[in-house]
Amino acid sequence: MELYLDAASTEPVDPDVIGAMMPFLTEAYANPMSVHGAGRTAARALEAARTSLAADLGARPDDVVFTSGGTEADNLAVKGIAMARMKMLRETLGGRIRPRIIISSVEHPAVLRSAQWLERWFGCEVVTIPVDGQAHIDVNALRHALTQTELPDQGGIRNRTVLVSSMLANNEVGTIEPIDEIVRIAHGHDVPVHVDAVQAVGQIPIRMREWDVDALSLSGHKFGTPKGLGALLIRARVPVEPLISGGEQERGLRSGTQNVAGAVALAIALHESTVRMRNRYRRLIASRNRLIDAVLRVEPNARLTGDPECRLPGHASFVFPGVSGEALLVDLDARGIACSSGSACAVGRHEIPKTLLAMGYEPQVAKSAVRMTFREPLERAEINRIAAAVEESCTTLRRSSEPRGTAPTMQAR
Amino acid sequence: MELYLDAASTEPVDPDVIGAMMPFLTEAYANPMSVHGAGRTAARALEAARTSLAADLGARPDDVVFTSGGTEADNLAVKGIAMARMKMLRETLGGRIRPRIIISSVEHPAVLRSAQWLERWFGCEVVTIPVDGQAHIDVNALRHALTQTELPDQGGIRNRTVLVSSMLANNEVGTIEPIDEIVRIAHGHDVPVHVDAVQAVGQIPIRMREWDVDALSLSGHKFGTPKGLGALLIRARVPVEPLISGGEQERGLRSGTQNVAGAVALAIALHESTVRMRNRYRRLIASRNRLIDAVLRVEPNARLTGDPECRLPGHASFVFPGVSGEALLVDLDARGIACSSGSACAVGRHEIPKTLLAMGYEPQVAKSAVRMTFREPLERAEINRIAAAVEESCTTLRRSSEPRGTAPTMQAR
Repeated sequence: MELYLDAASTEPVDPDVIGAMMPFLTEAYANPMSVHGAGRTAARALEAARTSLAADLGARPDDVVFTSGGTEADNLAVKGIAMARMKMLRETLGGRIRPRIIISSVEHPAVLRSAQWLERWFGCEVVTIPVDGQAHIDVNALRHALTQTELPDQGGIRNRTVLVSSMLANNEVGTIEPIDEIVRIAHGHDVPVHVDAVQAVGQIPIRMREWDVDALSLSGHKFGTPKGLGALLIRARVPVEPLISGGEQERGLRSGTQNVAGAVALAIALHESTVRMRNRYRRLIASRNRLIDAVLRVEPNARLTGDPECRLPGHASFVFPGVSGEALLVDLDARGIACSSGSACAVGRHEIPKTLLAMGYEPQVAKSAVRMTFREPLERAEINRIAAAVEESCTTLRRSSEPRGTAPTMQAR
Repeated sequence: MELYLDAASTEPVDPDVIGAMMPFLTEAYANPMSVHGAGRTAARALEAARTSLAADLGARPDDVVFTSGGTEADNLAVKGIAMARMKMLRETLGGRIRPRIIISSVEHPAVLRSAQWLERWFGCEVVTIPVDGQAHIDVNALRHALTQTELPDQGGIRNRTVLVSSMLANNEVGTIEPIDEIVRIAHGHDVPVHVDAVQAVGQIPIRMREWDVDALSLSGHKFGTPKGLGALLIRARVPVEPLISGGEQERGLRSGTQNVAGAVALAIALHESTVRMRNRYRRLIASRNRLIDAVLRVEPNARLTGDPECRLPGHASFVFPGVSGEALLVDLDARGIACSSGSACAVGRHEIPKTLLAMGYEPQVAKSAVRMTFREPLERAEINRIAAAVEESCTTLRRSSEPRGTAPTMQAR
């Protein structure tokens, strides 16, 4: 039986979620914008899903904008908020002001490339804030970057930085960022905060309103929905320019026929994840810590990456210096253990994990990264199996990577 | 039993489609970008779906960019092509040139508002080409609008119009536009053509390469997939700026974890629609014509809207002068007949159908529009039932809308 340790990449859909979607694919399939009774039934289901999703994230129904996934939600937040605020800046201060966007140096490509898109199309300045060796954002550097862009008080916008965007939890190394502190700093400078919570939602408790974040993205398939579903939670106080124009569904922020079955799937899957989280949080963390210990025991060269404590409960990430991460993934896969190098979200398949480079790892070491992610506590037998496979794989790979010159001689003996 | 005559708004999902998706929601759920075996299985399914979808549209697999629906596909085409070409124009000719976008006056909001977005953000000039009384685009006006923007030949771009966008079939009145002629004219002026084929795909044969269109959008839920699925077919020769940035999936044109189950659904549903179309095309047209005759017989005031011949096979649209379309929809719904005013794609629910205004109908008449759309040939008994309901509804509504002043008098008698 294959052991799937790539839950941070994607997950199977829960059968309950499929069951809950089914009526909205078959008999109750109408367009929620339709005037007829069937349309009204669909509209009610959509709004019930919105209410449930919001409740499980400490948000209000009006905050929820359904999207086609985390990437779209990140794009809408970064491009949409920056564009709207940029426009306000220009209207107030004329075209002389260069808007700044501040992101961390470990953001997902959906955020990083959205910022670069704004640079390319609107001449925005993109500033990336460094992280420490455990991937925590440098809050002093953030404060400095925001202070630099303060504007003389003219009764309007007080800062030419239009947006701060930070992950809640890192995809590659699982580190949880100090969002409350980031929000406090940014709001102190009159700048809104977007949080990419794609890796965190369903895994740790989210309190959108309590944290006072302005916008928060999530992706359904990371917590048990089919792919192609997500949401941006965004407060009405934040002006935002829609990216996808048309029939003006979803408060006018995201046009297109609303995916009722998908919204239901998001609500059900998140609620089930929330309940599961409550019941298994400690056990999940305990089993993750046992896994980390077991791996470090069989491979004393290996190192845990990211924060050992302040990390996602079902997330263990390592480097194996001296071993190729790509070869290790392939070898582990052949031994029935599916894991990842840290991100399946980029074309080109095996890239050097960018987070590790930003954390200060040498490229050669960063290339040895392996990430193991799971939603259910691992059994002791599973942990033993993983540790044994890691030990065998590393031994095999080290042997095969010994200098070619010596191997034939050894065989000849 | 309710009779659902709003197929152009959305359709139930075919059980075969749900069956085909299921393995990719459950056991074969991996991320197609993942290195492990499960990821490779998902990637193969994705590419097989791409190949099948392309084949049924007369396109090649490389043309297909999966999106979250027709609206996103329209946005990517209109904004993405215009932005990329705008950039080329500026690089060649400097900032002096004002890019023009040409659309018809009956485009869906996804196209119209995308063009307006370009106007707002980049100062593009949006020119709308009028249609005749049957909603056919005025090709002479198109030719004129393109001739106006010709540039002196400098070995580069020959026209400051960056895009022509036209529907293939109209959502409100079913009229099929002369796409081959539009393409011929636009290409003669060195301008690419986007075709919004959302209403047409699955209903009439599509030959993307043969027609030589540059980009073509489609929406899955109009031909039997779940909502939230679509594609833009776009030729590699056309530069396009992505709207959703990130991991650079889908040729770099549409980032975000690919929805494998969704791609499979699109391929299967389109293939089934294509087979169904082949078998029932004539029967569907014959039953539509009988429906039109029956409605016009019971309501001699009613008029068919759009082209009586060159229209979608399962599309009948009318105006009922002197009756409120909204009241008629509600009354028909109460009689178990679900139809629409012409578009469920706009917030505000009952708007005046824009196509009818562009076709020259008075607002008062346009507000009496009712659209009946269906994928299966209607039985004679169903047609009789619809005609009887229309007759009763119209009679009831005309009676209740008689001047209030006279009614009590009549009662008093």
